[in-house]
Amino acid sequence: MIEASFARDLLIETKSNRNDLVTEVDQAVEALFTRYVNKNFPEHRIFGEENAAHKLTTLDGPVWIIDPIDGTLNFVEQKRNFAISVALYIEGVGEFGVVYDVEKDELYSGERGNGAYMNGEKLLQVETKEGLADNLLIANVSAVKLYPKLADAIEASRGLRLYGAASLEYMAVAAGRAGAYLSANLAPWDVAAAKIIAEELGCVVTRLSGEEINMLEKGTSLVAMPHVYEELRSTYLK
Amino acid sequence: MIEASFARDLLIETKSNRNDLVTEVDQAVEALFTRYVNKNFPEHRIFGEENAAHKLTTLDGPVWIIDPIDGTLNFVEQKRNFAISVALYIEGVGEFGVVYDVEKDELYSGERGNGAYMNGEKLLQVETKEGLADNLLIANVSAVKLYPKLADAIEASRGLRLYGAASLEYMAVAAGRAGAYLSANLAPWDVAAAKIIAEELGCVVTRLSGEEINMLEKGTSLVAMPHVYEELRSTYLK
Repeated sequence: MIEASFARDLLIETKSNRNDLVTEVDQAVEALFTRYVNKNFPEHRIFGEENAAHKLTTLDGPVWIIDPIDGTLNFVEQKRNFAISVALYIEGVGEFGVVYDVEKDELYSGERGNGAYMNGEKLLQVETKEGLADNLLIANVSAVKLYPKLADAIEASRGLRLYGAASLEYMAVAAGRAGAYLSANLAPWDVAAAKIIAEELGCVVTRLSGEEINMLEKGTSLVAMPHVYEELRSTYLK
Repeated sequence: MIEASFARDLLIETKSNRNDLVTEVDQAVEALFTRYVNKNFPEHRIFGEENAAHKLTTLDGPVWIIDPIDGTLNFVEQKRNFAISVALYIEGVGEFGVVYDVEKDELYSGERGNGAYMNGEKLLQVETKEGLADNLLIANVSAVKLYPKLADAIEASRGLRLYGAASLEYMAVAAGRAGAYLSANLAPWDVAAAKIIAEELGCVVTRLSGEEINMLEKGTSLVAMPHVYEELRSTYLK
C-alpha cells in the first residue's frame, strides 16, 4: 500500500504545526491494522497515532500501540527513512513489538524475554563496555536546547547523526550503529515497539531525566548502550 | 571487496584526529582504482584520499579524484551510509563522476552536459521554486559554529538531518530528498564526483562564502536547490 503510493501525488494535511504531517497513506495503513485487530482480537484496544482512540487513559488489558508511518516527513520528502511501528502492551508491559523499515525492507522484532530479530536473524546484544568516545550519537535539536551540555556530549562522541524517524533511530542504537539516541518530545506510538526491541538487546530506555517512560504520555526519550547511558546521565543530563 | 570485509575484524588507524579513520579496506579499494587507471590511462594522474599523490598542486590534464570510502566512520560503526566516489577532471573541469552507495547498491552518475542517473535511470532536475520552508536541511555541527545564524535556518526549514557521508549528503540534495547540505570542512575527494552530479541536476555548489570550490584545497561546502541557495546565502550566511 505504501510503495504503491509512491507513484501518485499524496493528499497531505498538517496537524499540530506546519511540519507535523499526516497523509491519506498514514490513515489507510492504520485503518488496515485496526481492522485486523478488531477482527481477530475484538476485546483488545488500539492506541494509534491517527486514530480517534488517542484518548486512552489507562493501559489495562491488551493494548496495541500503532504508528502507521513513523517519520511522515521523511516519507513525504524522501520516500525513505520511515517505518511502521506496532507494539502489544498487556497491563502496561511491552510484550511484543515490530519496527519495519519499509524502503529498506528491514523488519525488526522483539518479544519480552526472547530477544530480538532483524528479518528473522537473531540480533546480538549491544556492546556493554564502550563509552561515548567510541560511539556515534543521535540527538535532535530540541534535546540539545533542553540540555545545552549535550553539545559537549556530541563533541565527546565519534560524531552526530540525525535520521528523523524515532523508531529507526532506536533501531540504530539497538543494532549497535550508534551509542545513544536522545529526543525532546516523542509520543507513545513513536517508541512503544522500539523500546521493547532495544531493551531485549541490552539497551537502557528512560526519559532524559532518568524516569520511566509512561506509555500514555508524550515526553523526552533516551535510549543508549549501558555505559553510554551512564556517561550521558552523570555528565551531560544533570 | 568491501562487502567481504564485513565478515572480519578491520585494521583501523587514525589520521589527523581520533575520528579521522582509515582502514585496510579504504587502502585496498583505492589501490584497485589506481591500478586500473595506471593500466588503462597511464598518462592520467590520480588524486586520492589515501594516496601519496595528495601533493597534487595543479589540475592540468586529466586527473582522477578518488575517495575509496567516503564516510569511513559510518563504514566502521554502521556498515552502511558510506560511498565510493570517483571523478574525472580535465584541465580542472569536472567531466564525469560516480558516487556509489555500496550498502544500498545505488550508483549515481553524472556527465557534464548530459544529465545524471541513478542505477541507469535518468534523474529529474531538482525543484526550482520551493524555498527553505518546504525542505529538509542537512548541516554539520561545525558549519553551524562557523555561521551561528544557520541555527535559524534549521528552524525555518522542515527539519535537520545528518548522515555523515558528504557524497551521499550531496546525493540527497541532488535527488530532491533535502533542500541543501552545508559543511565546514570537506576535502576535494569528498565532493569532486558529487558536485558534477548535483550540478547536472540543477543544484548550485559553492563554498559557504559563495566562492567557487578550488579542487586542490579543503574547505567549506554548500550544495542546494536554487531558491534554497539564494535564501541561505542572503539571510543566513552573511
